[in-house]
Amino acid sequence: MIGVNVAVIGMGLIGGSLLRALASAGHWVIGYDLDPATRAMARTGAAQAPRESRWQVAPSIGDAVASVDLVVLAVPLTAVAPVLDEVAGAGYTGLVTDVVSVKQPVRDLVRRLRAGGLRLAGYVGGHPMAGRETAGFAAGDPGLFHGCAWVLCLDDETNLDDWLALARLFTGIGARVVPTTAEDHDRVVAAVSHVPHLLAAALATAVSDPLAATLAAGSFRDGTRVAASAPDLVAAMTGGNAGPVLDALDAVMDRLDEVRDALESDEPIPQIKVWAAPANAARTTWPKGWGAPRQIPARAQDLLALGDAGGWVTAVSADGRTVTCATPV
Amino acid sequence: MIGVNVAVIGMGLIGGSLLRALASAGHWVIGYDLDPATRAMARTGAAQAPRESRWQVAPSIGDAVASVDLVVLAVPLTAVAPVLDEVAGAGYTGLVTDVVSVKQPVRDLVRRLRAGGLRLAGYVGGHPMAGRETAGFAAGDPGLFHGCAWVLCLDDETNLDDWLALARLFTGIGARVVPTTAEDHDRVVAAVSHVPHLLAAALATAVSDPLAATLAAGSFRDGTRVAASAPDLVAAMTGGNAGPVLDALDAVMDRLDEVRDALESDEPIPQIKVWAAPANAARTTWPKGWGAPRQIPARAQDLLALGDAGGWVTAVSADGRTVTCATPV
Repeated sequence: MIGVNVAVIGMGLIGGSLLRALASAGHWVIGYDLDPATRAMARTGAAQAPRESRWQVAPSIGDAVASVDLVVLAVPLTAVAPVLDEVAGAGYTGLVTDVVSVKQPVRDLVRRLRAGGLRLAGYVGGHPMAGRETAGFAAGDPGLFHGCAWVLCLDDETNLDDWLALARLFTGIGARVVPTTAEDHDRVVAAVSHVPHLLAAALATAVSDPLAATLAAGSFRDGTRVAASAPDLVAAMTGGNAGPVLDALDAVMDRLDEVRDALESDEPIPQIKVWAAPANAARTTWPKGWGAPRQIPARAQDLLALGDAGGWVTAVSADGRTVTCATPV
Repeated sequence: MIGVNVAVIGMGLIGGSLLRALASAGHWVIGYDLDPATRAMARTGAAQAPRESRWQVAPSIGDAVASVDLVVLAVPLTAVAPVLDEVAGAGYTGLVTDVVSVKQPVRDLVRRLRAGGLRLAGYVGGHPMAGRETAGFAAGDPGLFHGCAWVLCLDDETNLDDWLALARLFTGIGARVVPTTAEDHDRVVAAVSHVPHLLAAALATAVSDPLAATLAAGSFRDGTRVAASAPDLVAAMTGGNAGPVLDALDAVMDRLDEVRDALESDEPIPQIKVWAAPANAARTTWPKGWGAPRQIPARAQDLLALGDAGGWVTAVSADGRTVTCATPV
């Protein structure tokens, strides 16, 4: 694999971890963050890193993108448009990816900007499903993406070679790259990530009662853990994916209406048992293991079928014609 | 502290752990379980225990209660009435407590049975808030109750001396004994334990989609953990506390309706941020620490005020006039 020159814009938990991971994997990496204190911390961190895995820190977006093959936007959704403006304004016209936790809004934004004259050789939406309970450059970890599911969107307008270049890069730092569309991504993360954050928040205020705070134990602790996430992050992820989150929330509320009816009936216990059984079956068989690695053609239709089946890419062949993948069993 | 002779009826996780804990604390303890295999396992366990902390295993409820000062019902709600019948039929007329996870139904049942002629010197409802992910005698642990909140109900009909005797016994095995009423217990556990189980179950079926199962990570894992509990346990605890669970579920669904409205609005992000803020404040300040131990009079009104403030008893004085307690700070 040939080293890639990468600029990472935004050095929070994800950007800071990616900077370290790519540098450790032998790529030339340069980071930028709007916050001068974060830049200073990143410079100190680089100076303390082993010589072969050091990164650079740029004083501006223009300096960051001046001599790279790839720009990674590791900024919040609201910052994507102004940052892309600056990136383009500095004359960068290469490949761009992002790590924003919703994908249709970024794809639509890039479409609009391109229609308005933005020149970009390629854009591939990405989303590493990595933990977010801690934040900031200091919390970064070069191993954060090891074994992590990293969605790379394969939409109608996505160039397959761009997609494969990124899949090669991110599998190289240990990620399981999941091919899917922006639409499927947003629908699925609404159900398995965004709605869980809303349920946790809806539940957490129960401990305003001191007796309740004392009696609350494991089911409350786990059911509310992500309510400790910063409210602006929760608002950005759920509000930025409002349509799919509404659908997923309605599905959960329909299930709650069912159990509400059961609770109001004359014989709640047998009814609730029937209601709870499929959930128990789903949860006790999750997460699944996976089968032996196999090769499939590196074609969009095969990759999307792999993603639909819950599978992921673990390597891209040198000639870019096949990928190594795994599927749950 | 004088050793108490105790019969534990039901030797599942809670009963089996209590048998071990009381035996280790120097009490004479005898256990019974309807299941012959559980009785055999308990006999083998006793033979393997150190001589000074062995328990007895009875072949029948009558044998179990023949020479004890206290009967602990460690059986499901549905078994309480028939077991109490057998206990009374064997001529036992002493003190009874239970560990059922709802308290008003047991209190009301005991009231009805007493009105129908059941002779019992005293009944105190109890509920140790100890983990329940594993089940059965084999999963028992004499340390299960160390630091665990153990609710003992102090209702209008509860005899204070009975309450204090049980508080002394259970604080002696490390429990934090929480004084409250059956009504407040049921209201609070509905909110902090029963509804979390329903939310987890409502969420868990989301991973029927293979792509969702692959992208599900920490927030899904924690938000659904208790959906792995046996459906009949979930049904028994929630359906057995249907009224308070309905109220607590409605409170959560009202909060979800609010965020649903925010998601449908033109500016969801700022609205969701405001909505999520109190939940974040509640969760990031829970669990609280507690203040230095202090003495309070062992009177019902003082004990109930302690429970309302989220406090608990850690010891009962030798003369039974004061208790040592702690309160969250």
